[in-house]
Amino acid sequence: MGDTTVCIRPANRAEGREPFSGAVSKKDPHSTFQAYFSCNMETKGLRMAFYLLLMVHSSLQQTFSENRNNKTELDSAVEELQKQINNIVQELDLLKEQQALQTVCLRGIKVLGKCFLADPVKKTFHSASDDCIAKGGSLSTPLTWEENDQLYNYVRQSIGSEEHIWLGINDMITDGQWVDNSGLNVRFKNWETEITLQPDGGHSQNCAVLSTTAKGKWFDESCRAEKASVCEFNIV
Amino acid sequence: MGDTTVCIRPANRAEGREPFSGAVSKKDPHSTFQAYFSCNMETKGLRMAFYLLLMVHSSLQQTFSENRNNKTELDSAVEELQKQINNIVQELDLLKEQQALQTVCLRGIKVLGKCFLADPVKKTFHSASDDCIAKGGSLSTPLTWEENDQLYNYVRQSIGSEEHIWLGINDMITDGQWVDNSGLNVRFKNWETEITLQPDGGHSQNCAVLSTTAKGKWFDESCRAEKASVCEFNIV
Amino acid sequence: MGDTTVCIRPANRAEGREPFSGAVSKKDPHSTFQAYFSCNMETKGLRMAFYLLLMVHSSLQQTFSENRNNKTELDSAVEELQKQINNIVQELDLLKEQQALQTVCLRGIKVLGKCFLADPVKKTFHSASDDCIAKGGSLSTPLTWEENDQLYNYVRQSIGSEEHIWLGINDMITDGQWVDNSGLNVRFKNWETEITLQPDGGHSQNCAVLSTTAKGKWFDESCRAEKASVCEFNIV
Repeated sequence: MGDTTVCIRPANRAEGREPFSGAVSKKDPHSTFQAYFSCNMETKGLRMAFYLLLMVHSSLQQTFSENRNNKTELDSAVEELQKQINNIVQELDLLKEQQALQTVCLRGIKVLGKCFLADPVKKTFHSASDDCIAKGGSLSTPLTWEENDQLYNYVRQSIGSEEHIWLGINDMITDGQWVDNSGLNVRFKNWETEITLQPDGGHSQNCAVLSTTAKGKWFDESCRAEKASVCEFNIV
Repeated sequence: MGDTTVCIRPANRAEGREPFSGAVSKKDPHSTFQAYFSCNMETKGLRMAFYLLLMVHSSLQQTFSENRNNKTELDSAVEELQKQINNIVQELDLLKEQQALQTVCLRGIKVLGKCFLADPVKKTFHSASDDCIAKGGSLSTPLTWEENDQLYNYVRQSIGSEEHIWLGINDMITDGQWVDNSGLNVRFKNWETEITLQPDGGHSQNCAVLSTTAKGKWFDESCRAEKASVCEFNIV
Repeated sequence: MGDTTVCIRPANRAEGREPFSGAVSKKDPHSTFQAYFSCNMETKGLRMAFYLLLMVHSSLQQTFSENRNNKTELDSAVEELQKQINNIVQELDLLKEQQALQTVCLRGIKVLGKCFLADPVKKTFHSASDDCIAKGGSLSTPLTWEENDQLYNYVRQSIGSEEHIWLGINDMITDGQWVDNSGLNVRFKNWETEITLQPDGGHSQNCAVLSTTAKGKWFDESCRAEKASVCEFNIV
């Protein structure tokens, strides 16, 4: 910065205008300015003007840099907010999932460990089964006398007193071997055996229905018949 | 920028101080500076100082502009966060609405398609009806024997075994023509007819109560009497 | 700013370089510059250069200040977002709390005013009681015949038909004086008195169990025995 500074003489200085356009790095022009000026400035006034310029530039650069620090703080504040929002969205999704089940249980009925929701629209066994799966459930499959009774009462009240609904039970693979939605043998069965002798359809009737006419007793039925249905949703 | 530039000579230049205060646009002072200087600067040094000043100004303006771009990014980041928050608030409102119903159903009892919530405070029919509406429900109006039985059992357990509650049923408009909250004729009726012959109040008793003393049977009653009540909330 | 300005002559001016490094406040160097220059600048050109410098500095400072205003707006926008997020988090916590109860009621059973949730793991009375409290509930304590019956049916279905569960009832402090979780005398009691004469354990059996074998009747039992349990959660 003093007289000992090495003089830099840019090639295009002779033009007299914009002498540094190429030679001076825009990122840190200070040192070059200083070197150049200390060699060429003759008058005390101009030298002073140069230092003033330098000071102003420094002062502004400093302000910039404070500005930038503040910007960085804002950037990280925004990032922090985004993180908080992401957490909220996750918790919200969990709440919505839990509430979806609660809404199903409100609209249908809750029994021990599961909720039933009736669909009075008549459709084939496969269509009814697919629709339950699409809703996150499966065709109702009562596991106990109590559950069968609750399902029967629910169907009677919500669908009607002379209706059949598909159960999630079939013997498509091996005739007479009734399995549930998971392909496991069903242990609880409630076939109507007093008036008729269910299941009596053999190979032509591979799906099971619960009949409200028969007070919750089961019948086998052609899977292509169209019946109302009830989906069940496990409470986990 | 060269010698061909038209010289601008501001009116107040003669004063010798702040010559450009009015003449130079603060938004883009470059061109004016250039025009002025190319006419007036005699010494090579001053011309050089001017170009330096110009460069510094340019460099700082560029930094500003980068700063501004970053600012714009921050602005839109903040806008984006606000959008996300607005979405969350909407979903939260929906969850709260659904949960409000679930809370009512927890505090009271759920039957098929509706929830009942008892209010043991005794008040007139109109006051009780208004209070139910204010809560988003309406005075309980059983539609079936089963619902009447569930309501009776709930009232017995929550309000008492020798109580009356207002039903959402009245014959104010046409005596003997009992209508529900919507003004529609009621189809299910459960008047007490074994001991007394309800409804027996004629024009003086235009509102209906369910009596736990009479095991859920109905009586007509003066609408200005003060009774406990149960609101019902439809599950949708 | 004119010729009347008092001249400031910094001590280190004689050095000829960085004359103001100590004397000029970085926060507002304008007035000092002006005072100094109006005294020392001889040539019209330099004076002009000084004013230009001043203008550029002013213009940039103004831009800075606009920048800063925008920054302040961003800062308060970020603060505002944070406030909104805090509100959301509060509402979310409330929803989660309410949903926690609803989930308990779904997983167990809801009776009037409370929900029961079974824990089939066998443990001592104190351990079972502590576990219920840790979940925000307390050991089940039926208050009416109806509640006792609902609890019995729930235990039978969820734990088994030949099981005992701890009740939140003990006579540890005064033998024969049975108190609930809060230390209050219990009013509803359902001791088995037909086959055996409960409670019959005296000082060695200070805790009560409900037996599904005895269809919901109560027995006293050593508190150190290990039994299944049911927590109850009040609906508020």
